[in-house]
Amino acid sequence: MKELVVIGGASAAQSAAVYAARAGVEVTIVADEYGGQINNTDVVENYLGFKSIEGPELAKRYVEHMRDYDVDEMLGQKAVDIRRPDHFEVELEDGTVLEALSVIIATGGSRRKLGVKGEKELSGRGVGYCAVCDGPLYQGEEVAIVGAGYAATEAIDYMTDIAEKIYVINRSKGYSGEEITIERIEDHEKVEHWENSEIVEFYSGDQLLEGAVINKDGEEVELEVPGIFIEIGTKPNSDLTELIEKTDGSRIKVDSQMSTGVKGLYAAGDVNNKGVQQLAVSVGQGCIAGLNAAEYIKEHRQ
Amino acid sequence: MKELVVIGGASAAQSAAVYAARAGVEVTIVADEYGGQINNTDVVENYLGFKSIEGPELAKRYVEHMRDYDVDEMLGQKAVDIRRPDHFEVELEDGTVLEALSVIIATGGSRRKLGVKGEKELSGRGVGYCAVCDGPLYQGEEVAIVGAGYAATEAIDYMTDIAEKIYVINRSKGYSGEEITIERIEDHEKVEHWENSEIVEFYSGDQLLEGAVINKDGEEVELEVPGIFIEIGTKPNSDLTELIEKTDGSRIKVDSQMSTGVKGLYAAGDVNNKGVQQLAVSVGQGCIAGLNAAEYIKEHRQ
Repeated sequence: MKELVVIGGASAAQSAAVYAARAGVEVTIVADEYGGQINNTDVVENYLGFKSIEGPELAKRYVEHMRDYDVDEMLGQKAVDIRRPDHFEVELEDGTVLEALSVIIATGGSRRKLGVKGEKELSGRGVGYCAVCDGPLYQGEEVAIVGAGYAATEAIDYMTDIAEKIYVINRSKGYSGEEITIERIEDHEKVEHWENSEIVEFYSGDQLLEGAVINKDGEEVELEVPGIFIEIGTKPNSDLTELIEKTDGSRIKVDSQMSTGVKGLYAAGDVNNKGVQQLAVSVGQGCIAGLNAAEYIKEHRQ
Repeated sequence: MKELVVIGGASAAQSAAVYAARAGVEVTIVADEYGGQINNTDVVENYLGFKSIEGPELAKRYVEHMRDYDVDEMLGQKAVDIRRPDHFEVELEDGTVLEALSVIIATGGSRRKLGVKGEKELSGRGVGYCAVCDGPLYQGEEVAIVGAGYAATEAIDYMTDIAEKIYVINRSKGYSGEEITIERIEDHEKVEHWENSEIVEFYSGDQLLEGAVINKDGEEVELEVPGIFIEIGTKPNSDLTELIEKTDGSRIKVDSQMSTGVKGLYAAGDVNNKGVQQLAVSVGQGCIAGLNAAEYIKEHRQ
């Protein structure tokens, strides 16, 4: 019987593992791979203490920090189910079942992708999925944002104070999101609205994004910009147990203690419905989940 | 009229300032001094990304990070009131009034005091509140530490490498804190555990602390030591406005968006009633408050 199983391989998971291990709990971490979304982030400039650090380098430091403690690592493994006959059972893809006193779900989210030519190759080289993370790199430059929903409207609004011009690639017409945000961006002098438009492919020059071919209301045009943000939302990786309640957007419902409502089962980071999707928040939530899980385990040890 | 005033000088304040500045908002930070409680922390080992770093060094990096952005700093200043006739008014100790669209309170907490006879007079003359700051003055000597919670266990652990002997004045029995720390101090040869014990008064000889009268499990005894550290935790610095609702423990009530209930007024870090008092949590909450304040400001700009 394990004490704590942490499912996930990024910031929330590692912060939880560090805190639980420091509290004297046996920790097992189950992850497909380490790093999560910051592996696809060019530069991180908003995690306090690091003015500017490459995403993959910060991800590496997180793992090294965790390895300072006695954490049992099950890498290349994916959890497919969590059950609770009495204690918890975490089933892995290969059929292994881990028994545990407490479980923290920190599986994060995945940015939705367009799935067009050049996207994968230029990801982190001009094609990004988080304007709030990487937008400031384009101070005074022109950028494009793909999308017209909540994530896109927030991203466009955010970029109006940073970029020189913002082309919005909207596959239909109009926006959905917060009315007040929409009002601000609709007539903004910096924003050019391309409706009925979709990206056909991204193209590069010298390994960096140079622009995109766009079907603009039936006509194929080229748009040359150094940065394009695909802001069509995130999909929480929450589809691994029937035990918990989720929002309409598939986020796991938690309280401010990161508790799911099932005693001993916590969810931290982008997979839950609290806070905003930022590294700083995930690390903080991992801390809260790790400390609470440790306390729960100390109460339920034999 | 300022856009955002952040009150406080430590991690939550700096994280908020970084996020708001990145979002294109004009930020003014008002702080007595920078650093807060980590200035009094020997080594920080639980802020993900830094395996081990001295408290004051991490505090310095936080400030340097913030200074990468165009933040207006009002150092050596203390806010004494926040009013809201229409926009916000932040009154400083010297009478200056800052007008602002939005305010973030990130004033953290202060060390708690015992409130017994002789304490105030001998404070800084043998009675201290931060073993990590002043402990090295007692190299090879005997000291006492009051408390048995997180702050006390960390202080005792720290002093085992400095003092000749450590008397712990614990008003009940046992310790709470990090398991790894408690294990180290519980059977330490230098530590003598006085349970069910409380300090009645401090007494001096020649203006310096000479010892304390202690109720030791029902019996009044004198303990002669040159240094006594009171390590009984912190009090939130929340006493600066009548606008907001607080808990019985004087913490400012906020929702998961760090909103106080007064539109445009946020509270992040140890001063609020959310999360646990850890750096990781304060930094995450600063991020949430900073982003939300920026959004609020964009909606209310003229």
